[in-house]
Amino acid sequence: MKIDGTSYRSVWVDEKDGWSIHIFDQTRLPFSLDILQLTTPADVAHAIRTMQVRGAPLIGAVAAYGLALALRQNSSDSAIEEQANLLAATRPTAINLRWAIERMLSHLRPLSPDQRVQAAYAEAGRICDEDAAQNEAIGRHGLSLIQEIAKNRPPGTRINLLTHCNAGWIATVDWGTALAPIYMAHDAGLNVHVWVDETRPRNQGAALTAWELGSHGVPHTIIADNAGGHLMQHGEVDLVIVGTDRVTRTGDVANKIGTYLKALAAQDNGIPFWVALPSTTIDWTVADGIREIPIEERAASEITHVAGRTENGILTKVQITPDGSSAANPAFDVTPARLVTGLITERGLCPATESGLRSLFPEQ
Amino acid sequence: MKIDGTSYRSVWVDEKDGWSIHIFDQTRLPFSLDILQLTTPADVAHAIRTMQVRGAPLIGAVAAYGLALALRQNSSDSAIEEQANLLAATRPTAINLRWAIERMLSHLRPLSPDQRVQAAYAEAGRICDEDAAQNEAIGRHGLSLIQEIAKNRPPGTRINLLTHCNAGWIATVDWGTALAPIYMAHDAGLNVHVWVDETRPRNQGAALTAWELGSHGVPHTIIADNAGGHLMQHGEVDLVIVGTDRVTRTGDVANKIGTYLKALAAQDNGIPFWVALPSTTIDWTVADGIREIPIEERAASEITHVAGRTENGILTKVQITPDGSSAANPAFDVTPARLVTGLITERGLCPATESGLRSLFPEQ
Repeated sequence: MKIDGTSYRSVWVDEKDGWSIHIFDQTRLPFSLDILQLTTPADVAHAIRTMQVRGAPLIGAVAAYGLALALRQNSSDSAIEEQANLLAATRPTAINLRWAIERMLSHLRPLSPDQRVQAAYAEAGRICDEDAAQNEAIGRHGLSLIQEIAKNRPPGTRINLLTHCNAGWIATVDWGTALAPIYMAHDAGLNVHVWVDETRPRNQGAALTAWELGSHGVPHTIIADNAGGHLMQHGEVDLVIVGTDRVTRTGDVANKIGTYLKALAAQDNGIPFWVALPSTTIDWTVADGIREIPIEERAASEITHVAGRTENGILTKVQITPDGSSAANPAFDVTPARLVTGLITERGLCPATESGLRSLFPEQ
Repeated sequence: MKIDGTSYRSVWVDEKDGWSIHIFDQTRLPFSLDILQLTTPADVAHAIRTMQVRGAPLIGAVAAYGLALALRQNSSDSAIEEQANLLAATRPTAINLRWAIERMLSHLRPLSPDQRVQAAYAEAGRICDEDAAQNEAIGRHGLSLIQEIAKNRPPGTRINLLTHCNAGWIATVDWGTALAPIYMAHDAGLNVHVWVDETRPRNQGAALTAWELGSHGVPHTIIADNAGGHLMQHGEVDLVIVGTDRVTRTGDVANKIGTYLKALAAQDNGIPFWVALPSTTIDWTVADGIREIPIEERAASEITHVAGRTENGILTKVQITPDGSSAANPAFDVTPARLVTGLITERGLCPATESGLRSLFPEQ
C-alpha cells in the first residue's frame, strides 16, 4: 500500500546488502514514520516482543526472516531448532508465528547447512508474497459483503463499518485482512466510513488503523472502545469486520481484547459480524477457543500508562492511574463461533463452523 | 468517607464565611487533591460542565448550591428562573440535576425574595443530607447481595466485583451508589476485590474509582474497558454493580458509555448485573430509554487526548490519534432493562421493571 504516493510492504529485505531486514517501528506511529533495520535474530525477537511489528500475519513473516538471519550466524541443525524456539516464544497467542516457523523448519531441515541461508531467504520471501496475495483475495471476497449492503440502499448512501484494533496492511505484509475489503470498497467508489475503536490499552486503532485509513483517504472516525454498542443501538453500524490472531477449527475467534464485547453487541442489534483471516490463522488442532487458546498477559504498564505526543511534539508516556493501584492486562479474548456471522478467507466466505471451514479447506 | 483519616463530603459550605462552596477538583485526581472554592453560579456551571464535579447525585447537590449562590446576587423571580435554566443546561443526561433544580424552585418560588437565600442554603443542605442517607441505605441493601454470594463459598474466598466508571462517594455527597455496598462489605470483613474498568475516554475508573478504593484500602485491579468480557468468560467476575445517570420507569439504565457492553457480557455468562441508584435518578416520565434519553456528545478532544502525569510529575495531556483523524464521543449509553438483574435503591432491591419500581415507590 502507499504512503504519500510511495508503495511499501510492511517488511522487506535491504536492496543494497541483500540480507538485512527493514520494518516500520509501529510503536512510533502515527507521529513518526521510522524505518528500522534488523540484522540479528535477537533484533527480530525484540521487535516482535515490544510490538515494533505486530499483527498476526506480519509477525509470522518477520519471524521467518528472523530465522534466515539466524542461519547467517550458524546454520547447524541445533542452531536452527534453538533459534526457532526463541522466536516462537515471543508471542503466545498468534498462530501464524508458529505456522511460519514450522514451515521454515520443514523446508530447511532436509537441506545441508551450506544451502540453508539462501533457501531461508527464498522461503521467507514466498511467505511474504503468499500473504500479500491471500490478503488481496480476502479483500475481493469481503468486498462482496459491502457491495451487497450498498445494493439495498439508495446510491451514495454512507455505509458504516466498525473495526477493532488494527488488521490493516501494516498488520500484514500488504493489503491487510479486515481492512482489505474496506480499501477495495473505497477504491471502487463506494461511500464507506469506518468507526475505528481506539483499542486500549495499546491504542492500535487510534494510532495505526486511523493512520492507515487517513493515509489512503478513507473517511473514518475514532471512538472509545466503549462506544460501539451505543452506535449499533442507534443504527450507525452496518457491518463489523475484524481480524484475528487464531481461529479454531470450530470457528472460535481469538482477537484483540474487547472483540468479544463488540460481537455481543452486534448480535444484540442484528448487525453482521465478520472475521477476515488468511488460512494460516486457522488452528486445526483446537476445538474450544475459550478453554484452549493461551491468552497473553502483557505488562501492567500498558494499562497504567498511555503513550502519545505532547503539545510540544515530544513522544512520551503519561501515568493515568493512582500510585499503588495494580492493573491486569489480558491482551486477547475469544469470541465464540455462535457470535460470528461468517469468516472471510482467501478462498471465499464461510460460516464460522467446522463444516464451513472444511468446505473451503477440504485438504485439512 | 475518609481521606488519610479525615472525613469529607464531596461538597460543603465554607465554615468561616458560611456561604461559599467547596468541592474537590476531580479533573486533578488521582494525582493532586485540590479543593476549589466556588462563589458564583457561573463557577458552579463551569465546575459541572468541565467535570470538576461529576456523578449524577453530586451534580444535583452542587447545582442546588449553585442556585443558592445565584440568589445571593439576585433573588428576584426572573433571576431564579434564568439561573435555574443555565444550571440545568450544563449536562443533559443526568436526571438528578433537573430533579434538584426543580426541587429548589418548588421550595423557593412561593417565598418572598428576602427569604430565599437562607431557604436555598437550607434546602440544598437537606438535599445533601438526604443523598448521604439514601446512599448509606443503598449500601446496606447492596451488601445483602454480596453476603449472599459469600454464604455459598468457603469462608474467606475472594469475591470479585466489577464496576464501570465512578459511582463512588466522590460521585455523590457521601458513600457513593455502586461502591457503597462494596465499602460496607469490605468493612464487614468480606474478602472483596474490585475489577475497575478504566472507563475511557475520561478514565474515571482508573483515576477516581481506583483512588477511592485505594484510599479506603479495598483491593482492586484496574483493567482496560475491553477486558471485562474475557474475565467473565473465565469465572473471574461474581457480580457487576454500576451506578446510573437516569433510569426510566421501565428499568432502562442510562450510564457511562460502555455499560451496555458489560451488561451484554454479564448476561452471556450468567453473571448478575445490578444497578445502584437513589430514587431521584428515576425518570418516571420516560418509558423507552434508548429512544427517549438524550445522550450527551462531548468534545472530540476527550478521545484524541489523554490526561495523565509525566515521569517528571507534570499533569499534562498527550495526543494519541493522528493529526487529521476525527473522533466522536457519546458520553452515555442505555442498557435495556432486560439485561439488568435488578436495581438497588434506598428502599431495597427490585427487578428492573415498571412493576418492580412501583412496588418500592407506590406514591409515584
